[in-house]
Amino acid sequence: MGKRVFNFYAGPATLPLKALKEAKREMLDFRGTGMSVCEISHRSKDFQAVIDEATALIRELYAVPPGYHVLWLGGGASTQFFHVPWNLGLEGKPMAYIHTGSWAKEAIKEAKFFGEVKVLASSEDANFNYVPRAFTMDPNAAYLHITANETIGGIEWIEFPDPGNVPLVVDASSDFLSHPVDWSKIGLLYAGAQKNLGPAGVTVVIVREDMVARARAKKLPTMVSYGTHVDKGSMHNTQKKAKALYRLIDSSNGFYRGFARPDSRSRMNITFRLVTEQLEEKCVAEAKARGLIGLKGHRSVGGMRASFYNAMPLKGVKALTAFLAEFQKANA
Amino acid sequence: MGKRVFNFYAGPATLPLKALKEAKREMLDFRGTGMSVCEISHRSKDFQAVIDEATALIRELYAVPPGYHVLWLGGGASTQFFHVPWNLGLEGKPMAYIHTGSWAKEAIKEAKFFGEVKVLASSEDANFNYVPRAFTMDPNAAYLHITANETIGGIEWIEFPDPGNVPLVVDASSDFLSHPVDWSKIGLLYAGAQKNLGPAGVTVVIVREDMVARARAKKLPTMVSYGTHVDKGSMHNTQKKAKALYRLIDSSNGFYRGFARPDSRSRMNITFRLVTEQLEEKCVAEAKARGLIGLKGHRSVGGMRASFYNAMPLKGVKALTAFLAEFQKANA
Repeated sequence: MGKRVFNFYAGPATLPLKALKEAKREMLDFRGTGMSVCEISHRSKDFQAVIDEATALIRELYAVPPGYHVLWLGGGASTQFFHVPWNLGLEGKPMAYIHTGSWAKEAIKEAKFFGEVKVLASSEDANFNYVPRAFTMDPNAAYLHITANETIGGIEWIEFPDPGNVPLVVDASSDFLSHPVDWSKIGLLYAGAQKNLGPAGVTVVIVREDMVARARAKKLPTMVSYGTHVDKGSMHNTQKKAKALYRLIDSSNGFYRGFARPDSRSRMNITFRLVTEQLEEKCVAEAKARGLIGLKGHRSVGGMRASFYNAMPLKGVKALTAFLAEFQKANA
Repeated sequence: MGKRVFNFYAGPATLPLKALKEAKREMLDFRGTGMSVCEISHRSKDFQAVIDEATALIRELYAVPPGYHVLWLGGGASTQFFHVPWNLGLEGKPMAYIHTGSWAKEAIKEAKFFGEVKVLASSEDANFNYVPRAFTMDPNAAYLHITANETIGGIEWIEFPDPGNVPLVVDASSDFLSHPVDWSKIGLLYAGAQKNLGPAGVTVVIVREDMVARARAKKLPTMVSYGTHVDKGSMHNTQKKAKALYRLIDSSNGFYRGFARPDSRSRMNITFRLVTEQLEEKCVAEAKARGLIGLKGHRSVGGMRASFYNAMPLKGVKALTAFLAEFQKANA
């Protein structure tokens, strides 16, 4: 067997070794059923126990209040980009969005198929290196959509904006379960699993009862309606991890330079540059040789990017910061 | 470890032991990457090799001609129920469907959101125990949709109907890769993976170039359009298995009685009844005690049902027929 590496890719993310070992152990016989969990019926009590436990854990870890449904859906967060406006749009009301980068852009594009979209604020003026906190809310909007964390620029809404009486819709794909959220503002929150929750293939949608009622009042294809999925019943050393790397960046005397504006820094995706591209390439290559992989930045911002999703152990972060300190010493 | 059982459920289906063992072996380190396949990037060359190999194998096993794209999509076959009419419907032309049972019903219901639906034939008159081969084709239809195999009644189109110049759309979820198909009629064929191909979570869509062009000519949400998925690039002891069980049923002197009309018998889901419900319950219970599970029929037709999807080994079928013969002897 090869040596396990530390995977800093922006997604899919690393999974807890403990969980992988359990999956391995149970691959031929899940809890005495004589079958793999991949083979048992989604309607069996064995599988119902799996989904019930997962739902209960989400409710507990995220402190989801009563009145919200936790749904497990297929199709990825990209499918929610068009399911959200189709379910929650309202005749004669605009759908409000905040534009923070490539994921917000996708969400905005899909909403336009279903009605008027108002982009209330954008950080495009600075290549999306900050979250635009100053904007005027439209109290007539059907909802306000934000992207909690942008994986390319590495910017994050640590505190969500306050949309007044308008329900907030959050794409939390890349910072799901990484910090507590203020549910009193939230009408719907969705997240693809493949960064902070598990392997790719499932999307969690947490939706408030009045939003489900909105969906039920419409005529929608069965698989699109949140009402269908409701009827079918279908965190916390992150800050420490990101802080360690930002501290190293900020105390490197300009050897490492953060891309995201300090007031918008993501705790999930830490983006930074070195003085030259050659040095960046060298850094990525040497890191890789030590089993620290996935550190090349997205082509649209360049530089380097380390992703610290929930399952990344502190040990991986320490190995990375130790390497970066050493690399600076050798190349400054 | 518990004993592996033979799983005859109508889905999810059993998986090949060899594949499960390989998945187990590679759970912590996939082909020397130091990661599980669940952790590697969908854009990495390691994963590209996986999907390329899977696509090549589908093309080879199903003899897919050039001019067809093989797509791997999320959302299950139920999502295709509405993506098909949305992508392939044409202004001023009806969408033709043949009604053969509960899966066809779902497909018909979703198509109605997108235009006029004409049901050309139905076997509802006999509780869906046959496939209605005699019908008049509407040459003006945008497409003709059939459900290749109905898992509840256990009926199957062994030979697809000929829709003339109208493209045939096939939901092959429950008999995918189990027999050769005549591609010259087919515009699009789709199948959820969880019966004949692998674990749940992926849907294969095989689509002809002119159907993709139809989709591209429309304005569709990104995740709905087959054009998007094309751009992103994304058999054979079955008859022997089913024959063995049908032979046993037909030679049981009425102890076992087939539900599906002989000319419509499925090779995937063999449905049959015993003289009384008590005897059926006893039969299911005794089979279960021997590790033969999933034999209770769907509540809408009652009785018993054995599903022989591709990965069910002949050994499982032999164990089942031996048990049924013995059960008849003891209870006749």
